[in-house]
Amino acid sequence: MGSHIDILDLSNTSKVYHALATITAPNARLVHVSGQAGTTKSGYVPADYESQIHLALLNLRRVIVASGATVKDIAKLTVYIVNYDPQTRKHARPIQRFLGGHRPAMTLVPVSQLAVPAWLFEVDALIACPPPAQSIPRALTSGPGAENYDVVIIGAGLAGLTAAHELSRAGLSCVVLEARDRVGGKTWSQPMASGRSILELGAGWINDVNQTRMIGLARRFGLELIEQNTSGNCAIQDLDGSTSAFAYGEIPKFDFASVEDVMRIRDTTEADCQAVDIFNPKDTRLDSMTFEAYLRSNNASEKALWTATVWTRAMLGVDPCDLSALFFLNYCKSGGGLLQMRSDRKGGGQHLRIRQGTQTFSKKLAETLVPNTVRLNTAVKQVRQEGSSVDVITEVGSVYRARKVITTVPSPVLKTISFEPTLHPLKLAWSESANYGYYSKAMMVFKTPFWIPKGFCGLAQSFTGPAAVVRDSCSPADEGYALTCFMCGPPAQEWAALPQPERQEKLLTQLGALFKAEDTIKQEFVEMVMYEWSNDELAGYGCPCAHLTPGVLDSLGPNALREPTGNLHFAGTETAGEWKGYMEGAVQSGERAAKEIVDDLKSGLAARL
Amino acid sequence: MGSHIDILDLSNTSKVYHALATITAPNARLVHVSGQAGTTKSGYVPADYESQIHLALLNLRRVIVASGATVKDIAKLTVYIVNYDPQTRKHARPIQRFLGGHRPAMTLVPVSQLAVPAWLFEVDALIACPPPAQSIPRALTSGPGAENYDVVIIGAGLAGLTAAHELSRAGLSCVVLEARDRVGGKTWSQPMASGRSILELGAGWINDVNQTRMIGLARRFGLELIEQNTSGNCAIQDLDGSTSAFAYGEIPKFDFASVEDVMRIRDTTEADCQAVDIFNPKDTRLDSMTFEAYLRSNNASEKALWTATVWTRAMLGVDPCDLSALFFLNYCKSGGGLLQMRSDRKGGGQHLRIRQGTQTFSKKLAETLVPNTVRLNTAVKQVRQEGSSVDVITEVGSVYRARKVITTVPSPVLKTISFEPTLHPLKLAWSESANYGYYSKAMMVFKTPFWIPKGFCGLAQSFTGPAAVVRDSCSPADEGYALTCFMCGPPAQEWAALPQPERQEKLLTQLGALFKAEDTIKQEFVEMVMYEWSNDELAGYGCPCAHLTPGVLDSLGPNALREPTGNLHFAGTETAGEWKGYMEGAVQSGERAAKEIVDDLKSGLAARL
Repeated sequence: MGSHIDILDLSNTSKVYHALATITAPNARLVHVSGQAGTTKSGYVPADYESQIHLALLNLRRVIVASGATVKDIAKLTVYIVNYDPQTRKHARPIQRFLGGHRPAMTLVPVSQLAVPAWLFEVDALIACPPPAQSIPRALTSGPGAENYDVVIIGAGLAGLTAAHELSRAGLSCVVLEARDRVGGKTWSQPMASGRSILELGAGWINDVNQTRMIGLARRFGLELIEQNTSGNCAIQDLDGSTSAFAYGEIPKFDFASVEDVMRIRDTTEADCQAVDIFNPKDTRLDSMTFEAYLRSNNASEKALWTATVWTRAMLGVDPCDLSALFFLNYCKSGGGLLQMRSDRKGGGQHLRIRQGTQTFSKKLAETLVPNTVRLNTAVKQVRQEGSSVDVITEVGSVYRARKVITTVPSPVLKTISFEPTLHPLKLAWSESANYGYYSKAMMVFKTPFWIPKGFCGLAQSFTGPAAVVRDSCSPADEGYALTCFMCGPPAQEWAALPQPERQEKLLTQLGALFKAEDTIKQEFVEMVMYEWSNDELAGYGCPCAHLTPGVLDSLGPNALREPTGNLHFAGTETAGEWKGYMEGAVQSGERAAKEIVDDLKSGLAARL
Repeated sequence: MGSHIDILDLSNTSKVYHALATITAPNARLVHVSGQAGTTKSGYVPADYESQIHLALLNLRRVIVASGATVKDIAKLTVYIVNYDPQTRKHARPIQRFLGGHRPAMTLVPVSQLAVPAWLFEVDALIACPPPAQSIPRALTSGPGAENYDVVIIGAGLAGLTAAHELSRAGLSCVVLEARDRVGGKTWSQPMASGRSILELGAGWINDVNQTRMIGLARRFGLELIEQNTSGNCAIQDLDGSTSAFAYGEIPKFDFASVEDVMRIRDTTEADCQAVDIFNPKDTRLDSMTFEAYLRSNNASEKALWTATVWTRAMLGVDPCDLSALFFLNYCKSGGGLLQMRSDRKGGGQHLRIRQGTQTFSKKLAETLVPNTVRLNTAVKQVRQEGSSVDVITEVGSVYRARKVITTVPSPVLKTISFEPTLHPLKLAWSESANYGYYSKAMMVFKTPFWIPKGFCGLAQSFTGPAAVVRDSCSPADEGYALTCFMCGPPAQEWAALPQPERQEKLLTQLGALFKAEDTIKQEFVEMVMYEWSNDELAGYGCPCAHLTPGVLDSLGPNALREPTGNLHFAGTETAGEWKGYMEGAVQSGERAAKEIVDDLKSGLAARL
């Protein structure tokens, strides 16, 4: 709702995330926001500055959502900072992430205090709201061409296809609308250039202990399992770039005190995570603070902080300062705990791969449906509830009318669909608040698994990056040898900005150092295949799962995303209780949404509040 | 010119006087106000923070008035505070009173200093102005039905009726338009339920020494006088709730130092008040500060501050921090000085009551006028000057055309009438600035004057409230016994918010304690009759007289309210030189306005600038 003014010779533009000025349109409705401080809904104020920044920005976001605007409509931000430190500028990162590329006019005001002694950060804003959106007139869209189903499902990933399968079993008709030209969503299996074996651009691992749905599907579809290699040493790259080896399941060979502290922090995190309710995480204090503030409140050493940074980077593409402690603990809990979720062994999150590729799950599920149930290249633009029916309107104006709709899109994508009546404010605020870190996968294909003879299992972690975590992804039966590099968090983001040859060079250098193969790695190297989920619009620009900043769970309620509203039901891996961010969670969420609908339609409760 | 955004579950709303955000309409004219500091018109800066707040808000108000807006059009306020103390939050009360219930978006910014070293407070604002008001087309209102008079008088209180009387004596025709269904304005006499004697819901006292007009009217109309009882002790209630007795005219039995200091402050105030010009109070320093700042600058002890609080509460319904020192001193001077104005004895403000009720003055005055001169239930909506005539248009569209108009409405009511051309900016700013404190009267009727046998005269004062001052209001000849309780200032406002039974209970408890009648007061009690002038729209929501915050007299000029503009003349007790806020002042103001008109019309100067 406006435009920017920039002066071209502005120095240092790369670090500037605000405009010199913004212009609001003459017909803009202006919203003048009171100073928002970093307090939770109940008024609790976390002790640390960064957590307060997140909460203040969330409070600002809630006002923005309540006024019918979005972050993109912010014309001017003024931030007030107590004890401002120009060296660290800790406000910059959360604000930058909050703005998501939008550049308002901005003024920073260091102050000696704020209205309440505990407040360290306050933000006020001017918002220029667009005029109310014009919907497509019903007469133009709901002609005789409308197709009628019991249920329209948006998204042909594992959640959507599972739901379609379950609804069909219950005798309900459905259609699955998929914007991509393929099924599978964030599972996407592509062959190596050599054709030897599959590379997983998306989700890669399941297990046969506590992922009963996935192992069931694998068996049902006759898929072959590849057990993750955990024989041999793991590699670790310290902050100074030096590398060393340690046995799988142990702590890297830091000094004694650091090892003790990493173990203490790991165990504390595990214990606190186990205490969190999996479906209903509620803890105002834990949700008011970032995971970094949580770690620091537990007196984590620098080594422990960096170890935890590898966790959050590899699991969500973010640093501990970027997300709510409660969110992270609940995310771990959904995978059975920090240790189980991070484990490559029996029952762990990364135990078994699928020789045929994980996208096969979706392909096979789609084949079980009535022909023409899945419509590819069919992007949804609008969802309109009226009385007891819902019209789902595509970008090209086709109309699918149903009694119920399931959306399986990631929460950040929800805000891109036009809902009528508008999406419930809590869901809208969640969609606006949920965000991805930087997360890509780079598969490095080699002629031989050269790390095995050197005594490595292929698992590595790095405090420096560009890869935060590396895992063996070989298919020995196919003679396909690869290392999957998890390119996560800020170092990976810098790396991704480089030209392709430099990216490849840097990653090979890192892998050579990690696996003591500096001399030979270039001869071993075949190809690099990478996919930047952070550029994938339909995924909401990220992978594997959106995270939440402090205050969202507490102020919107832990189930705000999952709960149905009217005839809309919500699935997708992040709505799952167990194994959020994993394929198992996606399938569970599809089953749950289908069950809600079957129960509703069977009991005649076609319309919920 | 906008709306508010609230998030409903926002906690602590009771203490919040700003909105989370405000929305301005797309067609609003926006006024961006520079930081306004607490300086007088000449640049003088009072030393204390609270006085500066009042001045800064006045300066903001002047910008608002100059831009054709009102306080209700403020979209956003930003306040900058030096040496901010989150414990006292002294800005809150003046801003709350300034906003008068309006809730803009707001940010508070504590700063280490402001542009000028002496500045302790600054406020800037964004105002969203309404489009220019549409007036009623002249063709629709000035048809053949218009009644023609020499003078239209707005308001049938003592000022308006006196003016009508004087104009008639001078041979001019006039009509008096009264919005209420009765004459008398802020005099309103009602019988006790028993019918025994009159209770004064409004003004109650005159004297026969320096209120020559009132005693003259009483004699002319044959009204009977009741002398205020000052035999016996007065009662005082200290801050801790304890009560004691002291002789009328003396200082309560505080410790010796406090008694000395109360006397010193009383005498200093009296002396400074006597030095103020009654008609033309000018003293930038005294007008720049609150009365509290004045008292503190004289090193008043806590007891003296509380004693002075009883003065301002009982006289104007406000605390010393709420009003200009110069205004208060001039107000006292108008009644002959602090001591005389507060005195119940010969020549004092509360010496004589009227057995038939003070409203009789107005009733009798109305009877002396040509029949049908007073039109009740006739609220004025618009006053339109054109050439040498003025049209006064009522709410139902009737038009009264005259050569001159006298308005007698209280200054806060002026802004509710639509003037064309608009009211002079100084008058408008005065009307916007003038405000009432909280002021109600509660008459407690008893079977006997039980306080007399206990040695009390019935006069009491309290530092705690709910009643700030109590006075005997008996009519022995009618066997009607009552105590009039002046319910003034913040404690009374809290009391007024209670349900009726609790109000009664609390007041009886207070009176029982004051007059040592805890055991018997409930048996003596007959009825409570109260009237909340603070809810009376036609009085401008208050009584007996509007007060001014620091800077108004100095920046607008002491006579800005009184002076005629064009063919408009201004009367009412607050425009009087002598006995402002009293019946004597009202009558004097009516005489003065009538004389202005008689002089003008006689000399042919029908139109002033």
